[in-house]
Amino acid sequence: MEQSHIVKSFDDELKLINTTLAEMGGMAEAQLTKAVRALVTRDADLAREVVAEDSKIDALETELDRDAIRIIALRQPMATDLRMVITALKTSANLERIGDYAKNVAKRTITLIEMQPVGNTAHTIERMAELAQGLVGSVLDAYVKRDLAAADDVRMRDEEIDQLHTSLFRELLTHMMEDPHSITACTHLLFIAKNIERIGDHATNIAEYVHFMVSGETPDDERPKGDETSQTIITS
Amino acid sequence: MEQSHIVKSFDDELKLINTTLAEMGGMAEAQLTKAVRALVTRDADLAREVVAEDSKIDALETELDRDAIRIIALRQPMATDLRMVITALKTSANLERIGDYAKNVAKRTITLIEMQPVGNTAHTIERMAELAQGLVGSVLDAYVKRDLAAADDVRMRDEEIDQLHTSLFRELLTHMMEDPHSITACTHLLFIAKNIERIGDHATNIAEYVHFMVSGETPDDERPKGDETSQTIITS
Repeated sequence: MEQSHIVKSFDDELKLINTTLAEMGGMAEAQLTKAVRALVTRDADLAREVVAEDSKIDALETELDRDAIRIIALRQPMATDLRMVITALKTSANLERIGDYAKNVAKRTITLIEMQPVGNTAHTIERMAELAQGLVGSVLDAYVKRDLAAADDVRMRDEEIDQLHTSLFRELLTHMMEDPHSITACTHLLFIAKNIERIGDHATNIAEYVHFMVSGETPDDERPKGDETSQTIITS
Repeated sequence: MEQSHIVKSFDDELKLINTTLAEMGGMAEAQLTKAVRALVTRDADLAREVVAEDSKIDALETELDRDAIRIIALRQPMATDLRMVITALKTSANLERIGDYAKNVAKRTITLIEMQPVGNTAHTIERMAELAQGLVGSVLDAYVKRDLAAADDVRMRDEEIDQLHTSLFRELLTHMMEDPHSITACTHLLFIAKNIERIGDHATNIAEYVHFMVSGETPDDERPKGDETSQTIITS
């Protein structure tokens, strides 16, 4: 085997990992969008589709992990290449979790459709999901382009989702107190909102890995946080 | 440098990773126990201590990741050794999340202490936490001993936590309907219970990595799941 062939094949293998990661990211984004669309349009079939599709993301994670480990074992990549493979491993775990959150949104949506809708909350959730999806898209773009500034920007943008989450949390608690019949529905909406807030957190996790991949350093500055739900008290 | 010295040093480096992982695991377990103790005894100082201590687990994750990447780059481990280092990387990410969940339990406990206690729910949560802590302890033990059967056992034992979570979820929803003044407190308790259920999930994630580390295969059998909260409807 010629040296150039080995080098070419190594690049191909790295590209394969990135293709799988892009596919996982695209699917995770699509799953989130569909799950929230199902919530807004009260479409149980669409929600069931999201639940069924999740295993495809899981399968891609297994495939990517296997490829990454094979590359490390056979190619022994150094410096940036090694950091890229490690980042891909960590990113795939985060994308798999994002897929799980989208699936959970879809499961709760199937339950919610059997109940009365709660005010305009589904639209606030849709807005949160758009922001979260934007973060996932941006951070994967930053990964592909090895763009430190774009990755750091994602870490800062997560705050807006946190703020929407805090205000929705207060709104849902108030709604439950005013109309105890809505308690089950509001609880599922609280968890849906929390799932989407977590998707934003996973995007920022990936942003930290990309920062590490490009610079070799872990970002040590604290990012701004706007989620105050754990300190919230609403009295009737 | 003699060959034997290199080999010895490589083993030492692997041991260092395992020591850091054991330390992270011990801290994560202790944080969970303290957070739930603070909830049961309504001890805000203890809860604040948990919040303050979390950054130590984060720092250990950064340290372990750096050591693991250095080992891969400099020692180029093969087969089981490589799988062990990759498993350590994935496990550290899961332990860091477990620490985050314990911190969130502590934060919500600080908020809850300002409100009336809700029945006997804190004790059910304590029982869930004991089970979750047992899973974390067992899975780290399985990692150290490279014990496939013990790792698979952890994956099966998670179901009991899920079942307690489902029954507590129903109890808290019913409580909110009967006493709307308890809605804020019950909501924080719902999220605390969810955090502990997630800790169980992270222990099973680690169990899957240990399975992979020992056997080289990803477990493909579906583990039993007892969490039905996303399908729960309580009508008053």
